[in-house]
Order: sequence, then structure tokens, then C-alpha cells
Amino acid sequence: MAQDMTLLWGSGSPPCWRVMIALEEKNLQGYNSKLLSFEKGEQKSKEVLDINPRGQLPSFKHGNVVVNESYAACFYLESRFKSQGTKLIPDDPTEQALMYQRTFEGLTFYEKLASVLFYEYYVPEEEQHDSALKRNKENLSTEIKLWEGYLAKLGSGSHLAGPALTLADVVVFPTVAFLFRFGLSAERYPKLGEYYALLKDRPSVKASWPPHWLENPKGQDTLKDL
Amino acid sequence: MAQDMTLLWGSGSPPCWRVMIALEEKNLQGYNSKLLSFEKGEQKSKEVLDINPRGQLPSFKHGNVVVNESYAACFYLESRFKSQGTKLIPDDPTEQALMYQRTFEGLTFYEKLASVLFYEYYVPEEEQHDSALKRNKENLSTEIKLWEGYLAKLGSGSHLAGPALTLADVVVFPTVAFLFRFGLSAERYPKLGEYYALLKDRPSVKASWPPHWLENPKGQDTLKDL
Repeated sequence: MAQDMTLLWGSGSPPCWRVMIALEEKNLQGYNSKLLSFEKGEQKSKEVLDINPRGQLPSFKHGNVVVNESYAACFYLESRFKSQGTKLIPDDPTEQALMYQRTFEGLTFYEKLASVLFYEYYVPEEEQHDSALKRNKENLSTEIKLWEGYLAKLGSGSHLAGPALTLADVVVFPTVAFLFRFGLSAERYPKLGEYYALLKDRPSVKASWPPHWLENPKGQDTLKDL
Repeated sequence: MAQDMTLLWGSGSPPCWRVMIALEEKNLQGYNSKLLSFEKGEQKSKEVLDINPRGQLPSFKHGNVVVNESYAACFYLESRFKSQGTKLIPDDPTEQALMYQRTFEGLTFYEKLASVLFYEYYVPEEEQHDSALKRNKENLSTEIKLWEGYLAKLGSGSHLAGPALTLADVVVFPTVAFLFRFGLSAERYPKLGEYYALLKDRPSVKASWPPHWLENPKGQDTLKDL
């Protein structure tokens, strides 16, 4: 049990979700979990700022150790609890290489997703351009094809860096889940569809599924034509 | 000697520079080093695309292992050559936590720098807004103050995650070097100035100093009022 851990998080935030999956995979259930509301601006509350001067979620504390960046928290948890739960970083250097490569490409994948889904949220109205959003969509489409190709190469039933789940899946799966939540066609991207189906019923993923997605199982169709 | 390694890189690219510092710190001199020109678009050449479908630099190969993302390459090199050269990831989990945290905050630091320095390069002219660039500058200024504060807390002569150099310095130093190359005031940010002075003469940093900065030692003053 992980009673000496506290996670402040927001529902459906991919960075938060990464840390929640890592905690589950490392068998660290029972941590102090506090769901905050982005809509109410609670990421800027004193409670968050005391841990995280950036006023962002996730904010994560283990005893006196603070690790807020989602990737940093995942690396920390894997290192601190190496022999507990799922081994997220393989021992073999060649397997590690692919795992690291996909893990860090995952940041670009998420960024390209966010630049489409959250365009109107991040860009002030008077600075928005149809040409920019169109370009962002094209870039996201190119990016999705890259990942579809990675999965095709690895073969059926594979995870992102080989047969077993690794850190790469922990950090990238939330991005893939967002794609399908927002209407990506599993017919057009069958490998990503298969990967999504494989992971979505994994206990760590089910246990951390965004609560507001559970309340509203139907997503949107923003990405249906991609 | 590292004759089984190849690094394709561009002069003054912070991501490339990270990998070059890591190679030096791990005593991996003698790799096949090929300087390509962004101006000539050589990052889209067949030579790069054969290793890196994204057509980006750095592109890095060790034997048959390809690791192109700069952070991934640094993690791979540290893991593969753990007992060689500088230990970039400390053993102690608490020290690791701070190191991971700063390492990943480093991505935000670089992003905020790039959103100012490369604004006109990345944003098509008809989509540029003075209001956006102004906001980017304010965000960069806030970010710089955060790092100035981190260094102030650690005390004089410190590296980013404690007394010794770690992975955090390897990945963040190029961003700091860019700040001063583009005119940041070391009087206004004395801790960052001290940190820059400490690192710039380190052998790994000197050996990998951007060649076009050596040719033209004088930088620009874009950030002088920040």
C-alpha cells in the first residue's frame, strides 16, 4: 500500500493518466488520490502550488520527495520500485533503446494531438487561423501513420516496444485513447485500433479510466476524417 | 573509442548538443560524427531518413541500434555504459527524483526558449502576432526566474540537481547556453550566469561547442531585456 504517496490529478489529462497507470502497474494502490477540477482552475490552488510551483497537474509526492513532471514520476516509480509489479524498463540494452525511443517520441505524438484537440483552448481567439489548424491536423495525421507503421512492423498483439508492456505504453497509451475518444477510425488505422483494444481492458488502464469518460461513454467525432 | 557509433547532427541545435555532451561525458570519443546543414535542408536527406523517418537531427546509431530522440539517446548511453565516464543518473532514489524532475522540466524550458527565438521560423508570416510573441517572451521570463530560483536554493557552485553533474545538466545546459548567446543578462540572473560559467569550460561542453559559435563568437541581443 502506498499511503505515503499523494497524487493530485485532473480527469482525462493524459499526463495525469500516465502516472496513474504507472502507479497501478507498480502495485502502488492505496495512495492518496485527489481529483481536482481544471474547469474550476483548481490546478492553481494553494494545495497544488505548495507542491508544484508551475500550478499544473499531475502533482505527485512520495514522503518528502516531489516529482511533478509525468515522465519524471514514471521514471522515479520504476526506479524506486524496480522489483515490484510490472518491470517497465527492460534489462536488455537493445530492448531499452527501442523503449526509450518510443517513450520520447510519445511526447511529440501527444503534442501533435494537443495542437489539434486543444487548439481553441490554447490559442487566443484573435490569434486563431484556419490554416494553422489545418496544418496541425495534417501533422497529426502524418504522426498517426508513423505509429500505425511501428505497430505493423512489430506484429499482432504487440506492445509499443515489443511483446511486453513497457514504460513506452504507460506514457503513450493515454494519447492513443484520446485519438479514439475523439473519433479516430479503427478501420483506417487497424493496428492502432488493435493496440487500443488490447490495452483498454488491462487492469491498470481500467482502474485509471477517466471518470468523466465513464459518466459520458460517448466521445466526439473531431478526428473521424483523419 | 566508439567507432561503432554514428551521430548525424546540426551546429547549435540544442537536441544535438545534448547527445554530444553525453557522448563526451561517457568517454565515447571517436564516434563517426557528421555535421549536416539545416540551411541546406540536409536533415531531410536520404542519409538521415534511412535512420530517422522524422528527418530530424540528431540521428544516432550504435551498431544496429537506432536511438534518435535526444533524451532517448542520453538515457540509452547512460544505461549501456553505466560504469564508464561520468555517472549521469545517481543511485540514490531521492537524488534521482530531483534529477528526473529537472531533466523533464528541461523540455518545457527549451520549448519556451524556442517559442521566442524561433518564433518567426516556426510560425508562417501570415499567422504571426505581436501579442503571441509578447506572451511567449513573458512565459520565457517566468520560466527563467523559476530556474534562477532552483539554482539559488541549491547554493553556489551547484549543478542543476545537486553538487555533481547529472543527466539534468547534460540536457538543460544547451538551453542555458542559448539564453546567454542571445543576450540574457548575467547581472539580472546571477545564478544562471554562474552556472553557465561553471559549465562552459567543462571539457565535454568545450569539445562539443557549436562550431558556428566558434566562428562567430559574438551572439545576438534578442533576450537582453528579459
